Amino acid sequence: MATAKNRGGFALERTTISQIFADQEQFGGQTVTVCGWARTIRDMKTFGFIELNDGSCFRNLQIVMDANVLGNYKEIAGQNVGAALIVTGTVVLTPEAKQPLEVKADTIVVEGPSTPDYPLQKKRHSVEYLRTIAHLRPRTNLFSAAFRVRSVAAHAIHTFFQDRGFVYVHTPIITASDCEGAGEMFRVTTLDMENLPKKDDGTVDYSQDFFGKSANLTVSGQLNAENFAMAFGNVYTFGPTFRAEKSNTTRHAAEFWMIEPEMAFCDLAGDMDVAEAMIKHIINTVMEKCPDEMNFFNSFVDKGLKERLEHVASSDFGRVTYTEAVELLKQNNDKFDYKVEWGCDLQTEHERYLTEQIFKKPVFVTDYPREIKAFYMRLNDDGKTVAAADCLVPGIGEIIGGSQREERLDVLEARIKELGMNPEDYWWYLDLRRYGGCKHAGFGLGFERMVMYLTGIGNIRDVLPHPRTVGNADF
Amino acid sequence: MATAKNRGGFALERTTISQIFADQEQFGGQTVTVCGWARTIRDMKTFGFIELNDGSCFRNLQIVMDANVLGNYKEIAGQNVGAALIVTGTVVLTPEAKQPLEVKADTIVVEGPSTPDYPLQKKRHSVEYLRTIAHLRPRTNLFSAAFRVRSVAAHAIHTFFQDRGFVYVHTPIITASDCEGAGEMFRVTTLDMENLPKKDDGTVDYSQDFFGKSANLTVSGQLNAENFAMAFGNVYTFGPTFRAEKSNTTRHAAEFWMIEPEMAFCDLAGDMDVAEAMIKHIINTVMEKCPDEMNFFNSFVDKGLKERLEHVASSDFGRVTYTEAVELLKQNNDKFDYKVEWGCDLQTEHERYLTEQIFKKPVFVTDYPREIKAFYMRLNDDGKTVAAADCLVPGIGEIIGGSQREERLDVLEARIKELGMNPEDYWWYLDLRRYGGCKHAGFGLGFERMVMYLTGIGNIRDVLPHPRTVGNADF
Repeated sequence: MATAKNRGGFALERTTISQIFADQEQFGGQTVTVCGWARTIRDMKTFGFIELNDGSCFRNLQIVMDANVLGNYKEIAGQNVGAALIVTGTVVLTPEAKQPLEVKADTIVVEGPSTPDYPLQKKRHSVEYLRTIAHLRPRTNLFSAAFRVRSVAAHAIHTFFQDRGFVYVHTPIITASDCEGAGEMFRVTTLDMENLPKKDDGTVDYSQDFFGKSANLTVSGQLNAENFAMAFGNVYTFGPTFRAEKSNTTRHAAEFWMIEPEMAFCDLAGDMDVAEAMIKHIINTVMEKCPDEMNFFNSFVDKGLKERLEHVASSDFGRVTYTEAVELLKQNNDKFDYKVEWGCDLQTEHERYLTEQIFKKPVFVTDYPREIKAFYMRLNDDGKTVAAADCLVPGIGEIIGGSQREERLDVLEARIKELGMNPEDYWWYLDLRRYGGCKHAGFGLGFERMVMYLTGIGNIRDVLPHPRTVGNADF
Repeated sequence: MATAKNRGGFALERTTISQIFADQEQFGGQTVTVCGWARTIRDMKTFGFIELNDGSCFRNLQIVMDANVLGNYKEIAGQNVGAALIVTGTVVLTPEAKQPLEVKADTIVVEGPSTPDYPLQKKRHSVEYLRTIAHLRPRTNLFSAAFRVRSVAAHAIHTFFQDRGFVYVHTPIITASDCEGAGEMFRVTTLDMENLPKKDDGTVDYSQDFFGKSANLTVSGQLNAENFAMAFGNVYTFGPTFRAEKSNTTRHAAEFWMIEPEMAFCDLAGDMDVAEAMIKHIINTVMEKCPDEMNFFNSFVDKGLKERLEHVASSDFGRVTYTEAVELLKQNNDKFDYKVEWGCDLQTEHERYLTEQIFKKPVFVTDYPREIKAFYMRLNDDGKTVAAADCLVPGIGEIIGGSQREERLDVLEARIKELGMNPEDYWWYLDLRRYGGCKHAGFGLGFERMVMYLTGIGNIRDVLPHPRTVGNADF
């Protein structure tokens, strides 16, 4: 049988810098081919140094180039920062030097040159400027570290749930129902905007739209996750969610990723147990797998980062009822712009005061007044509060919102009607209570807030690969 | 410090059926509490049997109930299928019976009853009917198995790439550019549809839309993935993508998930190596972790499934150029509705004939005519073909589309202009070739097609938790 000729399989022949650093003794004295980009090039006329980064790890590899060895020394020494190079040479262990090893180059090939006006020169750039070159910023130390931590944290979350038998469910992104009534939604349509079909009464005829009805981008996969928890017991989602809020803050994006576990036969205490174990697992995994990145953040972004995370990973989270929290906060009302009283929604200033000043660690606030929480949360016996639990963390405020769900059909139906919603819109959600309903609970973790918490980065735009915010969908 | 009272932490006290089957010897003679849903209830008056499923695994657990032991025997025996039960009892090993063990109940509590008209009665239902109750169908054997395989396959993909040092990138879902020009896109908007803002010329004024311009749902994360590969070397995406095509087939959905790896310093042969290794890894993982599910599919959905998958996992994929494939197919032109000739796009009938009849295993077809492939694919030296590689598999046809990307700035710019596109729209994509460009390659795997391939399920609607297709966005 005919076979396409093999072109060299480059991907499998090169050695990554990460491999070399991970197995230094084995690579010492060996010849390797490494492929990467020049971060700096220092030309001392007869010899020189290149700091090469190949993206496989945070660290650069020092390449030593010798004019007596390299026939194209001048070409290489004259390259601009950012050039893509293919280096073949010998790994030399340098136990007495700052870096543990270097590569003495036998050959260096310019795979792709750069230019003198390469935007990432050696000087430090502001994050604001780097956002305008979001296609290049992953090549800087800050963003290289941030997006590697993001990737490792994402996989830590998958592994946490998969190891515990949770089923990963891809809940739908496009939805025809505003399930939570949570904020503004984006419309999804294929109607011809220049020539919208109209009904007899002059309003837009969505029956002619792609889905035969009005459709939006999801704000939460929770109701669908509940559906699957009633079959699989323990499930989780991990996908994008959307809010069309025009708030231009450091903590809000129009498009962000959420993790939403949902557990059958689980109450609010079990819900908090899972959330706490998950956060500790994420922290421990990132600290273990990204030591260079975490040291960088600790040195250049947030001096107290590692100590704080280690403290969180090793201590029990606080648990306090909303009613108790309000009493604690009222004693400090002189410090707040918005004064606290029972019944009010907690503002970020209150949440941060609770977790940073009073508890000095993450804390769950439970049992909020029903009026300020969603319709699906389980009504407590006091008739006034619901079995909700928000997790607040120092430096961020709310990072998790969770609750036990109302499993009692009559109570849930009454609440839906009380809020002026139509029970028929929730027919399948109510069915879950009709056919083998059970106590169940879940929560939502905002993934970007978790990455901000892990890295100390203060702006959500800097932990999203290509952030979407009001007025911005570039790249 | 005040602490919310612990409510019992139900999630962590129950034993899952999966745990009991996994560690039978240890559980034999032990008292356990299991929580699940009754699949069948057989009442023999003084004793009876319940098949309980808790979603932790494919198998049911047999519960034995004895009227002399259970004070509420009549209540339990009278429950309807689908009821949620909490059973405490003793695990009894039954080596001589069909099932390896059962639980003799000491107490059974009805957590949530079901009704006599529960839609999932014991009889077999059509998949068409089950789609109308998509909130209940995960409780059937078929969909329980399908969605568990889906979850395990998703995690196998993450683990495959993470173990190899690939960085997981969340490329944006909302995009202001039609990057591939691949088919119809969904518009994303917050404009008031009943009162659209207009420009002076009477057309819609998208500068007033949320992002300040016209925006759509992504059809591919590839261009953004290339961007990150030029920093991290090896990256992958795994996220939802969208096509607003009104094609109502068994293989197309409006919303589906894609995996798109992208490798720097990698050519087409390396690209195929990664794709082949990934597919084998997914198959091996699912076969190992889901034996009961795979046996079910092999018995009830597709008799040849396991044999075919084992064959694929253990054999080298074929590799054939498009030109060679056309020659092979032309010899069988009498069998095709569309006759094959050089330059034509291969139809599903051709793809399936190649992989099923000629190669009898997965095959990569490489080096397609440039006219039928995307602008970013690398032009071969012949000037006529591009370095593309589609992977075709028996029973499905195309499951992977990949290519080496055009890394030469001048060639890429010329191609963009030749196709009547505006290079300025691709400024940042072209920048990747300006500053340290390098040979690189990647591919896209349609996740639902992979799950169909793994399960033998023939309709994409039955591997998506809540499918979105033309005219349908229910649940």
